[in-house]
Amino acid sequence: MLSINTLHQTFELYLKENKIVKNPQTLYNPFNYIMSIGGKRMRPLLTLLACQLFDENIKQALPAALSVEVFHNFSLVHDDIMDEALLRRGHITVHEKYGLNSAILSGDAMLIYSYDMLQQTPNKSIIGEMVNILGKVAIKVCEGQQYDIDFESGSNISLDAYLKMIEMKTAVLLAGSLELGALAGGASFEDRKHLSEFGRLTGLAFQIQDDYLDTFGDPSKFGKRIGGDIAQNKKTCLYIKALELADTETKTQLLSLYNTSGNEEHKIKTVTMIFRRLAIPDFIKHLRNDYQQKAYQQLELVNAPAEAKALIKNLAASLLVREL
Amino acid sequence: MLSINTLHQTFELYLKENKIVKNPQTLYNPFNYIMSIGGKRMRPLLTLLACQLFDENIKQALPAALSVEVFHNFSLVHDDIMDEALLRRGHITVHEKYGLNSAILSGDAMLIYSYDMLQQTPNKSIIGEMVNILGKVAIKVCEGQQYDIDFESGSNISLDAYLKMIEMKTAVLLAGSLELGALAGGASFEDRKHLSEFGRLTGLAFQIQDDYLDTFGDPSKFGKRIGGDIAQNKKTCLYIKALELADTETKTQLLSLYNTSGNEEHKIKTVTMIFRRLAIPDFIKHLRNDYQQKAYQQLELVNAPAEAKALIKNLAASLLVREL
Repeated sequence: MLSINTLHQTFELYLKENKIVKNPQTLYNPFNYIMSIGGKRMRPLLTLLACQLFDENIKQALPAALSVEVFHNFSLVHDDIMDEALLRRGHITVHEKYGLNSAILSGDAMLIYSYDMLQQTPNKSIIGEMVNILGKVAIKVCEGQQYDIDFESGSNISLDAYLKMIEMKTAVLLAGSLELGALAGGASFEDRKHLSEFGRLTGLAFQIQDDYLDTFGDPSKFGKRIGGDIAQNKKTCLYIKALELADTETKTQLLSLYNTSGNEEHKIKTVTMIFRRLAIPDFIKHLRNDYQQKAYQQLELVNAPAEAKALIKNLAASLLVREL
Repeated sequence: MLSINTLHQTFELYLKENKIVKNPQTLYNPFNYIMSIGGKRMRPLLTLLACQLFDENIKQALPAALSVEVFHNFSLVHDDIMDEALLRRGHITVHEKYGLNSAILSGDAMLIYSYDMLQQTPNKSIIGEMVNILGKVAIKVCEGQQYDIDFESGSNISLDAYLKMIEMKTAVLLAGSLELGALAGGASFEDRKHLSEFGRLTGLAFQIQDDYLDTFGDPSKFGKRIGGDIAQNKKTCLYIKALELADTETKTQLLSLYNTSGNEEHKIKTVTMIFRRLAIPDFIKHLRNDYQQKAYQQLELVNAPAEAKALIKNLAASLLVREL
């Protein structure tokens, strides 16, 4: 069984070997740039770990691992344009570095390559199904991104709609990464579905946690400034749930706070107080823990060696902090 | 055998039946808008005509026909952003109508759907090869678009490089449309390659003709203003060949004319005169005719009924005017 570290190194080597050295460089430089600035490689690791549950020879899963990483980076390049983001992983974004047109076009090329890379899977008989899985995931990711954009300017978003959005935008790609790896490893249909569900539920738990920590995280551990989402009027699950629970007066107060750009410190403090008064932290903690628990239950159901499953659980646990 | 008109109607009906009625509408409205404003449906018609050469039941080719049309429209949506185009087929462009973000994202969705639609092919055993063909075409189209962008700001472009660019940007999709149709119809490998070559050469002949007609076309027949490319300093094959043939003095004059924005009428007249003096019209006419003739030779080699081949030749002839 290969450790997470070994799998990570194996993936980085495969990525390097499959770097696109081709003209026009104006198309492939942005492509190689975004792929080279790293990230945690969470999705390809999930693909390789899922394969390893059923087959220790992970070669069948390497093309799919590269595919999901390239797809993920395509979505980052185009999302960063839409969000007018200046930085990604501490580096200048593709559209800021190479211009809008190159960012659009190299993103397109990455999306196309994410399909093309699946063709390198040694077992040709499963490529068709892999393409199908990637396609279903890809459509949902686009739809999720559109819902996210729509929600920013919309009102009266329900918590269910918000959870559906983060599921599509983030969780389905984690689910797909695991499903592709399981398929490459020769898993049964049932085990593929359990792993896919594990990925979906873990993704939801992680995104909910992300919202929680932005307001209620430990400042000494949380990488970003506490309260950033509130300062930016971001419609997180905390805010949406608070609007659902608030009485008319509190609702008016919240809406007004999210509509004005006044003293930020005061705003963060007031909104946090409202959240606490409505018992939002407890609700959100329970929501995350519930998804996390259900995710682990799905992993339990997978028919594979316990020590290989433990590696996947460890990787998920590195995303999901123990105590909220 | 189905006529071009019947095939056109069959395609429009299939397109209507497969219209995406789904949320979020903000994603699918731009998608359906660009698909609905028409165009000549040249690529899906080539797919259906190529299928019909080998199998009169064109059902196997309808998903691929839709796929190439959706792919083509994806490329238009993203190209129009890059060109800052206001109009497409006489209608307002997607990014002008729906905004930049929706144009990027709905373009992405169209690219994904162009793969997904192939999955509807009744003969499941050929879907893998179809995905492969679409992928190879798609990468070349992106590369061609990047070369086009690069050429606009570059100097010293050779005619060969220009021809390679238009081949990738335009001709390979015509080639792929025919190859997908032939595959759906059960053609031999050789016939698929002949048809693909026919498409590639026809695409080149058409693009070269397009450059020619913009300067030397009959004003009463040519839809656009004569000399528009010269007025916009477009590096057409006429201009590139002229720079290759010109002596130092004429070259300096041409470069200077393409670098200044003076009297447009005078500029168009002077450049056209230089082109004539260098015998560019004859050279370009021969170049186009040569590609056209080679294209028809490839079609001749296809082992299929003459009357079915005549339909494809007719469609190509509707693109390629008899006399330049």
